[in-house]
Amino acid sequence: MRAVSWEDGACVLLDQRRLPAEETYLRLESSIAVARAIGDMVVRGAPAIGIAAAYGAALAYQEEGGDRAGGIQARLRTLLDARPTASNLKWAVTRVRAAAEAATGDLFDAALREACGIHAEDVAMNHAMGRLGADLIDAPCAVVTHCNAGALATGGFGTALGVIRQAYANGRIERVFAGETRPWQQGSRLTCWELARDGIPVTLLTDSAMGQMFRRERPRWLIVGADRIAANGDVANKIGTYALAVLARHHGAKVMVVAPHSTIDPVTPGGDSIPIEERSGDEIWAISGLPAGLPGALVKNPVFDVTPAECIDVIVTDRGLAQHPDCQKISWLLEDDAGDSEKLSS
Amino acid sequence: MRAVSWEDGACVLLDQRRLPAEETYLRLESSIAVARAIGDMVVRGAPAIGIAAAYGAALAYQEEGGDRAGGIQARLRTLLDARPTASNLKWAVTRVRAAAEAATGDLFDAALREACGIHAEDVAMNHAMGRLGADLIDAPCAVVTHCNAGALATGGFGTALGVIRQAYANGRIERVFAGETRPWQQGSRLTCWELARDGIPVTLLTDSAMGQMFRRERPRWLIVGADRIAANGDVANKIGTYALAVLARHHGAKVMVVAPHSTIDPVTPGGDSIPIEERSGDEIWAISGLPAGLPGALVKNPVFDVTPAECIDVIVTDRGLAQHPDCQKISWLLEDDAGDSEKLSS
Repeated sequence: MRAVSWEDGACVLLDQRRLPAEETYLRLESSIAVARAIGDMVVRGAPAIGIAAAYGAALAYQEEGGDRAGGIQARLRTLLDARPTASNLKWAVTRVRAAAEAATGDLFDAALREACGIHAEDVAMNHAMGRLGADLIDAPCAVVTHCNAGALATGGFGTALGVIRQAYANGRIERVFAGETRPWQQGSRLTCWELARDGIPVTLLTDSAMGQMFRRERPRWLIVGADRIAANGDVANKIGTYALAVLARHHGAKVMVVAPHSTIDPVTPGGDSIPIEERSGDEIWAISGLPAGLPGALVKNPVFDVTPAECIDVIVTDRGLAQHPDCQKISWLLEDDAGDSEKLSS
Repeated sequence: MRAVSWEDGACVLLDQRRLPAEETYLRLESSIAVARAIGDMVVRGAPAIGIAAAYGAALAYQEEGGDRAGGIQARLRTLLDARPTASNLKWAVTRVRAAAEAATGDLFDAALREACGIHAEDVAMNHAMGRLGADLIDAPCAVVTHCNAGALATGGFGTALGVIRQAYANGRIERVFAGETRPWQQGSRLTCWELARDGIPVTLLTDSAMGQMFRRERPRWLIVGADRIAANGDVANKIGTYALAVLARHHGAKVMVVAPHSTIDPVTPGGDSIPIEERSGDEIWAISGLPAGLPGALVKNPVFDVTPAECIDVIVTDRGLAQHPDCQKISWLLEDDAGDSEKLSS
């Protein structure tokens, strides 16, 4: 399945809001339609958002014809404003614009070539991480994942689920345990759907049932994505990741984080410096028949948590591995000449 | 608040299905109405169910007048069948029947006296456990609870929440963190409502946010109830308790289990012998717009988990404490002459 694709002159998005009940694809033939779909959460996951925006930027150049200065800036601005905090969105639109501005021939052709390149690079990076991560799993076992770091969040294949796909193909995964991931249920809505569709055995549990599952089923790995990796190897990821990492360590399972090296933020020294976004508590109250909360009771709805580097066995990136991550190993991954995974193993 | 009470010739139940949106009390004037309310989950929590059934049994004797043999058995059977697996229900109805059968005067009077006695004993037991448990909390701190082991689950005051109420009154609790307790939300629906109503500061979190909460807020105690305590001190309680106990140990917090000694099952040697009830996975899928699940994805919905004795710092019962519980300390709690809490501390 593809969350994003370019087909016959249009950007096609799988409408993730309707999953898993319905598999509906939206064919978007204008940059404004792509911007609106990004804003409306048809597509989620930073890499997938970036790729959709790149195709949207290509459409913007098509709409403006040969005009290098006029309406194009307004159209690109609409795309950039669709989800203001998504850094991949800005990065992708900027790349497409630079390619078009440097073009000597048709601007749309150059922009679309760049967008397709961004997409292909993302998929290739996921496959590379999938191979690196899967090679670490040395015997058939059960594994655990959280939230959705899959094909649905990327250009295809996925980060954490890319490793799981590759390891399953290698005969090294017997079953995947996925927590529902409250309060948005990305685990039940997206990860279960994605794995079931690929025929990979998956079992859904409530997030709180993971403790007993670790004790009884003895999974060997926790495999998750990352939203940000600090310079010391601390990892911010979907709320719940840290508790799973503690449970994994307590039960002798290993913890693998899978993310492109662009997820590393070298100016964030450690996890305590990562601002944790908090969303409205109404998202939690909603299923209890209290859309506006309960007077006298506070509610906290943090979106991410921080897993300290000492709870992580390995970070898998497109530039290689950082085993038992620390400041030095993380900085190696950011060196321009990095890419030699041997060097980064320890 | 009272989940169950006897008022002007009727059993009055707080309709817990409507909490926290509505506080509605049902006045039940017949044994069949009480049986139906128990079956329909108007009241939940083993002690509260037992007390409601005791009042229902008293009503049965009123309905049959002086008849010792005829319709009374059918009426009591209806009560016993309301929730066939609730052991407190059988215990309470049997006690009321024995009191009525032994009576020399009015059967209804004798039955009602016994039902009121069962209720008063339960409340007194909760207050005794509350004092014992609260004395263990030696400095003002934040605590964590799970599910609802409160006034709503008992005759009043509560087991785990009884300790929290008493410790709050003693100035030893600054805030209570409560997980929502998927998939039934007893934490958000019942515990938050109960604590907010008593003016005790409570913060609601998703179950998976507890890891980061332990790391950042440094609560000193996890305080929970129990559904069954094995002979070796292993504790079965609401799913999610075990993960919280592991998180508590990892962060240097202590684990307190609060339950009447009748929760101890001496014929269950350890937690591995406790059958874990599994409910339909549809309860989990429901909030993801998939009422009947997802083809290709399994789902597991265990209701309880087991926390091994080595993860528990103290079990608080009406017969005293078992610190660092083991077979010997648990058997002391079951001795007829038990009750000397000094002896049981270690």
